[in-house]
Amino acid sequence: MKATHDILIETKRALPALAASGEKKNAALKAIASRLIDEKDVILQANALDVEAAKERLGDVMIDRLTLTEARIEGMSQGVLDVAALADPEGRVLRRIERPNGIVIEKTSVPLGVVSIIYESRPNVTSDAAVLALKSGNAVVLRGGREAFRSNQAIVNAIHHGLEDAGLPPELVGFIEDTDHRSADEIMNAVGLVDMLIPRGGAGLIRRCVENALVPCIHTGTGICHVYVDAAADQEKALNIIENAKTSRPSVCNAEEALLVHKDAAESFLPKLKERLVDQRVDRGLVPVELRLDKRAAAIIDGTPAGELDFDTEFLDYILAVAVVDDVDAAIEHIGLHSTGHSESIITEDPEAAAKFTSLVDSAAVYVNVSTRFTDGGEFGLGCEMGISTQKLHARGPMGLEELNTYKYIIRGDGQIR
Amino acid sequence: MKATHDILIETKRALPALAASGEKKNAALKAIASRLIDEKDVILQANALDVEAAKERLGDVMIDRLTLTEARIEGMSQGVLDVAALADPEGRVLRRIERPNGIVIEKTSVPLGVVSIIYESRPNVTSDAAVLALKSGNAVVLRGGREAFRSNQAIVNAIHHGLEDAGLPPELVGFIEDTDHRSADEIMNAVGLVDMLIPRGGAGLIRRCVENALVPCIHTGTGICHVYVDAAADQEKALNIIENAKTSRPSVCNAEEALLVHKDAAESFLPKLKERLVDQRVDRGLVPVELRLDKRAAAIIDGTPAGELDFDTEFLDYILAVAVVDDVDAAIEHIGLHSTGHSESIITEDPEAAAKFTSLVDSAAVYVNVSTRFTDGGEFGLGCEMGISTQKLHARGPMGLEELNTYKYIIRGDGQIR
Repeated sequence: MKATHDILIETKRALPALAASGEKKNAALKAIASRLIDEKDVILQANALDVEAAKERLGDVMIDRLTLTEARIEGMSQGVLDVAALADPEGRVLRRIERPNGIVIEKTSVPLGVVSIIYESRPNVTSDAAVLALKSGNAVVLRGGREAFRSNQAIVNAIHHGLEDAGLPPELVGFIEDTDHRSADEIMNAVGLVDMLIPRGGAGLIRRCVENALVPCIHTGTGICHVYVDAAADQEKALNIIENAKTSRPSVCNAEEALLVHKDAAESFLPKLKERLVDQRVDRGLVPVELRLDKRAAAIIDGTPAGELDFDTEFLDYILAVAVVDDVDAAIEHIGLHSTGHSESIITEDPEAAAKFTSLVDSAAVYVNVSTRFTDGGEFGLGCEMGISTQKLHARGPMGLEELNTYKYIIRGDGQIR
Repeated sequence: MKATHDILIETKRALPALAASGEKKNAALKAIASRLIDEKDVILQANALDVEAAKERLGDVMIDRLTLTEARIEGMSQGVLDVAALADPEGRVLRRIERPNGIVIEKTSVPLGVVSIIYESRPNVTSDAAVLALKSGNAVVLRGGREAFRSNQAIVNAIHHGLEDAGLPPELVGFIEDTDHRSADEIMNAVGLVDMLIPRGGAGLIRRCVENALVPCIHTGTGICHVYVDAAADQEKALNIIENAKTSRPSVCNAEEALLVHKDAAESFLPKLKERLVDQRVDRGLVPVELRLDKRAAAIIDGTPAGELDFDTEFLDYILAVAVVDDVDAAIEHIGLHSTGHSESIITEDPEAAAKFTSLVDSAAVYVNVSTRFTDGGEFGLGCEMGISTQKLHARGPMGLEELNTYKYIIRGDGQIR
């Protein structure tokens, strides 16, 4: 097994080879897309071993996340081509300043350098992260989870072959072979070798990175997302959006966890909510949603009384905390106190309420009449994503190509002194 | 004395009042500019007490930094008006994405929230920081140094009066009354109350903030800046730039600390360098520069032999480390190993060497034929600056209005679900 430190150094050393033209980068991505198809059988075999080994330990949902199929590999390969087709984020002049003394200052986007991602089970993150990094001019150090180790290695092999086909060093995509805690710790401490670390996985992993990393680290993923149903809401729209945001995939960070309802809408809306999320779902043979109600909501419909922590919990389950609020200001205040800054949505036909909500809610994604489930790189048209930032510095929301760049000032003159 | 924690809470609470139109913000800045003039005498009296008290402890340079004059206060007031005249950074749509499903995504610049700055002696930082923060839509917590306490307080009083004149709460500019270490520590730990912390001062302060802060903190200021004299340099330009970069103000972070000279230029250039920086300066009654020479440079001119750490030291003094390098690639490699990522300059008439240098040198500001001394908010046309970032995430180089904003995604639709 190759030492983590050696891989970090190799990746950093390979970086200058990527000071490449957009065409060279795109040629590499196309070669990688081809190699993923060419090496499909090898990847599927490796994946079968991972799935077999994990069956005893993981539940159905996790096994599904881990499992690759021919179609999924084709999707992965297509995803690489989609990223290749996006605009090159490098070298954009973000601002140009000409000064009276004749110097010309160009604020220019440039790659961060070496980006590292620590992730858990899904093997498609391997190709997503590698191609986003390469397209944006970065080298990348991948540290996946133990369950997907063989799958990830087979995918990385295909990526390495693609880089070689395009005349670039395979070391641009470093693959950590040690899936122990130690290797994650080593990456977190690799000052000078890693320019940005993105943890992508459960709350425990993210907390460990944010609290311990000495390298710059992005806080990702935790989502206590709110939907607020205004007095002026189209209630049918609200029901559709809430059912989608809560139940289409409860285990993900952009799922709804709390519902706020304007007091003037509560009497008419809450009974419909219970019908849609509980009664109808039982009838349709679907998992019903457990409603955890504050006192004002409990005065209108039946449900579980909300406990003290229910408005501060990322359930990731068929559970929804429900509160009645006085108005949009009270909703905004509640969100300010309880949100993790991920995604919130207002359902209203009133432009003033919508404007107030989008202006004052301080989260990465603020929606009007749309499900929170759209906070996703693919859904935003970014190709895919490195993770979803819930911090405010550098990047916020889904991190695509632009967020994998920093900038530098390039200043040209003719001997100017100060 | 008001408790630091109370001021932090008051500032955070005042923030929503600033969700103001650009006009309201500009009215406040204009009122502040007037108040600084109106209250000039009070500020000068307070400053005289600070200067008197500091005379025993501080050297001449520091006393000069601390001292206010009528002209300096007028400059401060004009600076406020200059910032008011800049474009409003808030509410810019940085990217607009229309998706096939009809949702419209706008990546929109928004204030960070509460920005805090911990700074040392110069009282003009008080007004610079306050007006940059207000203009960019942020509340600010100011924690200045003990030496300038009375001056800062008088300036903040004028700012508070200006805010009141404009109908805004004075609490938008929080002023920490405790100048002890404890108050700095409290700010560093004020999670949820401070969205970004900028230390602006000596290396010790910056290190303490970066290492200990729990709130997001920007690494600022340390500058081991390089000038590289290429084989194709105009040597007269090079001499002017080097003398300016090294001697115009040796104590600041954008001053040159190390000089690299192409081996083909060294024989002809180094004797001129010694003449300009040592002999002529002695003749002109100026402080000569001590040259610390690597072996190859020492073979050509006289000087101090460079010690092991001389290429990794921010001298902030009339000292220059000098090395001879094989070519532009060797210069870039040297800079990669020894720079703090602040500012570097190539002196060359060769466009290819310039292009290589600007592309591969990974620093906040990369110059061609210009002195490194221009890395400064005012010189960049940003009005003034909150500090100079030497990190890569979020902000790099002089931090002006745009760098005091983050963004959020505002997504509008008509009931879209996923």
